[in-house]
Amino acid sequence: MRVLGIDPGLGRCGWAVVERGPHGTTALGYDTIATRGEAVAPRLAHLAARLREVVARYQPDAFAIERLFVNANVRTAMTVGQASGVALLIAAEQGLPVASYTPSQVKRAVTGTGSAPKAQIGYMVCALLKLHAVPTPADTADALAVALCHLHHATSLGGGADRGVAAATEADWLARAAPTSPWRGP
Amino acid sequence: MRVLGIDPGLGRCGWAVVERGPHGTTALGYDTIATRGEAVAPRLAHLAARLREVVARYQPDAFAIERLFVNANVRTAMTVGQASGVALLIAAEQGLPVASYTPSQVKRAVTGTGSAPKAQIGYMVCALLKLHAVPTPADTADALAVALCHLHHATSLGGGADRGVAAATEADWLARAAPTSPWRGP
Repeated sequence: MRVLGIDPGLGRCGWAVVERGPHGTTALGYDTIATRGEAVAPRLAHLAARLREVVARYQPDAFAIERLFVNANVRTAMTVGQASGVALLIAAEQGLPVASYTPSQVKRAVTGTGSAPKAQIGYMVCALLKLHAVPTPADTADALAVALCHLHHATSLGGGADRGVAAATEADWLARAAPTSPWRGP
Repeated sequence: MRVLGIDPGLGRCGWAVVERGPHGTTALGYDTIATRGEAVAPRLAHLAARLREVVARYQPDAFAIERLFVNANVRTAMTVGQASGVALLIAAEQGLPVASYTPSQVKRAVTGTGSAPKAQIGYMVCALLKLHAVPTPADTADALAVALCHLHHATSLGGGADRGVAAATEADWLARAAPTSPWRGP
């Protein structure tokens, strides 16, 4: 199963393609799409063009997108909404299923706690996927975490994303192969 | 000049195409696109398909979109953002300019006051465009008002939309032909 994880944003939109195959879980590509300027429409067009390139190149089976945290302000919610609207439209146009996860679901899936700090997300993503360095900016690490969260919900729990439950963490799942938790504090 | 006015929303998105020509200002088409269901992505795809049909049919010169009011809640901001993101993407893909207006700019342009009630917007839009009935739902009337607001800013003030100023109202502008204000209370 190959998932495109997205941490939506207008200024910075993280994306990551993660695949779970018979030989393990691998990050195939990940980056952050940055847009700047006063006018929103051309920034959204740039974002859409880049996301369409990612979909064409990596051919994911599903989209997984991080939901807005509840305490966001209205301006943030508006711009995150615009970016997520573009991403969801592309998913629908490609006929791909979409799952969305709250920030605490994403954190819990990769760290075991819904209140993990940013640095712990980056550290765990790096460890779980055996990357050479913690991905930056944080939007890229978050996109990898969203993709892992979806794989955790969709494969180790037998499908049914977006149910708001997490009986085991993605870290638990991968720990069968590497039983020692790699997180030892910031 | 032909403007596509949009009152963005996920559940209901109002649209209106209004043209100002040598013989006056005319509403060419207007309606509200409604979407329902749990999954956001197919709703955005439906909205995009309908808006693309409107653009193909009416060939507007510009988009005018209503901004979110400041006191909106985060959930509303998110869904309005998703719908406006899709509309702005379509504008950018068509190479059309986009202007955005605050709710009070829109109200002032058609009624003379930034704090007009909903019913007054519908009434004035009906009167200014010589429609047979007040357009419903309110989203359709709002889309007509946004289009009129843009024509007001772009033509009677010599271009430069989105400047936050309104020296004269759209009602004033049209009153040269019909000097009596048609609004006499709800």
